[in-house]
Amino acid sequence: MMNHRIFLLLALCLFSLQGVFAESNGVQEKRESYQGKTPKYVFYFIGDGFGLSQSNAAEAYMAAVKDKDGVVRMVMNTFPKQGFYTTYAQNRFITGSAAAGTALATGHKTSINTIGMDAAKQKPYKSIAEKARDHGYKVGVVTSVSLDHATPASFYAHRPSRNDYYDISVDLANSNFNFFGGGGIKHPEGDKKAKKSKSSAANMGLDSGEKINGGKKNSLQIAKKNGYTIVNSNDDFNKIKAGDDKIIAINEKLSGGKSLPYSIDQKEGALSLADYTQKAIDVLDNDQKGFFLMVEGGKIDWSCHANDAATAIKEVIQFDNAIQKAYAFYEAHPDETLIVVCGDHETGGLGLGFSGSHYHSAFKLLENQKNSYEVFSSKISKLKRKKASFDKVLKAVEENYGFNNGVKAMKLSDYELSQLKQAYDQSFGKGDKIENKDQYYQLYGSYEPITVTAGHILAQKAGIGWTTFSHTATPIPVRAIGSGSTLFEGYFDNTDLPKNIEVLMNL
Amino acid sequence: MMNHRIFLLLALCLFSLQGVFAESNGVQEKRESYQGKTPKYVFYFIGDGFGLSQSNAAEAYMAAVKDKDGVVRMVMNTFPKQGFYTTYAQNRFITGSAAAGTALATGHKTSINTIGMDAAKQKPYKSIAEKARDHGYKVGVVTSVSLDHATPASFYAHRPSRNDYYDISVDLANSNFNFFGGGGIKHPEGDKKAKKSKSSAANMGLDSGEKINGGKKNSLQIAKKNGYTIVNSNDDFNKIKAGDDKIIAINEKLSGGKSLPYSIDQKEGALSLADYTQKAIDVLDNDQKGFFLMVEGGKIDWSCHANDAATAIKEVIQFDNAIQKAYAFYEAHPDETLIVVCGDHETGGLGLGFSGSHYHSAFKLLENQKNSYEVFSSKISKLKRKKASFDKVLKAVEENYGFNNGVKAMKLSDYELSQLKQAYDQSFGKGDKIENKDQYYQLYGSYEPITVTAGHILAQKAGIGWTTFSHTATPIPVRAIGSGSTLFEGYFDNTDLPKNIEVLMNL
Repeated sequence: MMNHRIFLLLALCLFSLQGVFAESNGVQEKRESYQGKTPKYVFYFIGDGFGLSQSNAAEAYMAAVKDKDGVVRMVMNTFPKQGFYTTYAQNRFITGSAAAGTALATGHKTSINTIGMDAAKQKPYKSIAEKARDHGYKVGVVTSVSLDHATPASFYAHRPSRNDYYDISVDLANSNFNFFGGGGIKHPEGDKKAKKSKSSAANMGLDSGEKINGGKKNSLQIAKKNGYTIVNSNDDFNKIKAGDDKIIAINEKLSGGKSLPYSIDQKEGALSLADYTQKAIDVLDNDQKGFFLMVEGGKIDWSCHANDAATAIKEVIQFDNAIQKAYAFYEAHPDETLIVVCGDHETGGLGLGFSGSHYHSAFKLLENQKNSYEVFSSKISKLKRKKASFDKVLKAVEENYGFNNGVKAMKLSDYELSQLKQAYDQSFGKGDKIENKDQYYQLYGSYEPITVTAGHILAQKAGIGWTTFSHTATPIPVRAIGSGSTLFEGYFDNTDLPKNIEVLMNL
Repeated sequence: MMNHRIFLLLALCLFSLQGVFAESNGVQEKRESYQGKTPKYVFYFIGDGFGLSQSNAAEAYMAAVKDKDGVVRMVMNTFPKQGFYTTYAQNRFITGSAAAGTALATGHKTSINTIGMDAAKQKPYKSIAEKARDHGYKVGVVTSVSLDHATPASFYAHRPSRNDYYDISVDLANSNFNFFGGGGIKHPEGDKKAKKSKSSAANMGLDSGEKINGGKKNSLQIAKKNGYTIVNSNDDFNKIKAGDDKIIAINEKLSGGKSLPYSIDQKEGALSLADYTQKAIDVLDNDQKGFFLMVEGGKIDWSCHANDAATAIKEVIQFDNAIQKAYAFYEAHPDETLIVVCGDHETGGLGLGFSGSHYHSAFKLLENQKNSYEVFSSKISKLKRKKASFDKVLKAVEENYGFNNGVKAMKLSDYELSQLKQAYDQSFGKGDKIENKDQYYQLYGSYEPITVTAGHILAQKAGIGWTTFSHTATPIPVRAIGSGSTLFEGYFDNTDLPKNIEVLMNL
């Protein structure tokens, strides 16, 4: 009887294992039996909110503005190895950036909002960036959002919540990574709200010197004590050179959430994600051992949350521009370099087709948009303070989105006009108020009603629809080129990506 | 001067070629230099309207009904080789089933609605199925929609329009393929409208004997003259055996458009796409040379057009059940078999996240739906004839979709109720009529307003949103297993799929 039970248990175990293998779709065996080249230089590009449709929308836009049919391939989509993967978190099917970042950085599923720890928030998980550092690789982290945001944080921090911004920035200061670049630090002084000030020192949170806030030491001061040089002007950025080490490069101009301004809002000559990526390469390519560089295109997500198609597409193109820097490096070191380009989840449920447009798409129309929803929403706020009439607001809408500019396709229909009027009524507290909260949220989410409605209308004219202001659970593509890229072919799970990199770098 | 010009021309040519290679992402070189095994048995599964989100929704549903986290992998998604591809037509970014079918069958882009011909509708393109036939392979075509529908037609017909149903069915009759199975023939007598009759002979269009209609000969009679046996009862279907040849097997029970009834509406014991696939294998596996079998899951598309998530997911699962039959065959002939699973385009802009549900998904709720939008719409039609009150209609809605069944998540909110009431008003001609055509279409498309609203509400409760009642342009995944499957890794164009198969089968 006992033997029978043991046999059954054994059979069950084997059956379960078989299940696991079936789930992993051969990727585990492929990884474990890998005998090919190992890379010395590893690039890990993560587009936040970057799904298959975001990629395709950018490529269709690039073709449309050149009056070409079909798509113009981005560099990332010319990479020979392509796969995709599921993204679900340990406790939710639709993941968030913290759980997804942790999966991509450590190879472990975790709970929503947790950074670099297990789902119960008890045990830290070491990231591949930390392991690379421990093995003597140079390590860099670049992002277009703040350096302590969920995705970059997952590579160096271990905190119960992505909102523990101060604690996360202390982890950054103690990380001993070689290069951080892009956005700023949200709460270096441990205050809950970031200081509002126009001085760049304040922007960095350094103006209080070593001021102690509730017993907390300014995290950027900790970084300085740990040997970091903190740079936050274009001039100083340009002076960073090969041989420099332990750099925290914060952009001179930051917009909301201490991020790089949206590409669509950038002035000529402003530093871009590509510039930060190139600078990271310059600093990290300084060692026999090699390097690991994570670059996040963080604001694809934010603009997709706001359902702002034109802004999102330009963020995707900026992300690909950054990848071009890595690709140039790969071309100089083809046998020693691996580039992996992926995303943490899709945002917005972007559909390359909209009910009202039937089968029609006209991506070129997106060129008409001048500024992001962020910049335009502040314009609306100003108009609100002035109690502007609907006609005045409509004029501003027309100016920013190119509506009624004489081109037939850009003419606002009666229905579109009525939608803008309804949004104006909600925003300016006039006319019929939408009392039902569900109805209100489905129309505007938590965004400025006029801005989001205008963005929807432009997207719809271009042939784009959205299903949500949040994330979706659709699988995400990965593209890879170089040594070990063959491991990224197939259909697997987000946790498989860092596991592959770990094996390839012998971490 | 002349030499200079020639040099420039040459340089330009090389530059263009480089462009082509970049666009094709290495797939062409890979194909041309392929030295591996060649398959004797080729399965080509095409899910109509089947994108990445449809696949993921089905896998999430399969996990949810078993109270498991994440996904349960369908057989197709355990295949080791995965890639994806663009789908745009020659003259539209968002493709249609005829242009996409022609691309997948012949390797050529064409114009919208064209079947197996060039964009100008002048020149026929031979399909890989026809080439396989010419090379002595047995050939089969199985579909859940009518046998003369756009996707199957692309494999044997050459007609200026997908709507030339009679002409297409004449091409079928003359195709000399060995097995056709699944749905029926729409207009075998050349009449524009299909006959309505409950007799199965009428269903097949055979009841007029050799009746000539406007000088046209019944296409099924042509097929019979050409040696085909036409089967349309379960009993006769069951009698088809290995060794039989030239079979047209039409399902005993057909629903709209002469298609197999939706999986969700099927009675126990009804023949499924999997049964037709297995029968095709039995008939085709009868030759030393081998076979080519195309199987279409055609009604994923139709249910996604109608934004009916529960019905679509069950069609996807039925499609995977058919793939399981091919997989069993592969397991018996692993070195000689190739299975390719793809889709022609995505339909509906299915997003695995809905604004009103924020980050919440509850796929299990879709279990509550009893019948497809098609069956439920006929119920509504009956209620309409009886001039039923809103309360009566609401009761029918509750019964079919499981709303207000005592489970909290299934309770209709005030907003949802108001949406159903508005739909009732439009459908039954009561209350405020929506005068604006754009607004009406964005809400209901060309579907029965109450049905589509109820389907939307159930999908939204499950955490699913839609952007359109038409197709979208998002790239489509391909999965492959077996000899030559390595050619299906990467990111390419829909025309590359048949080109790969052509090389692999030496056609």
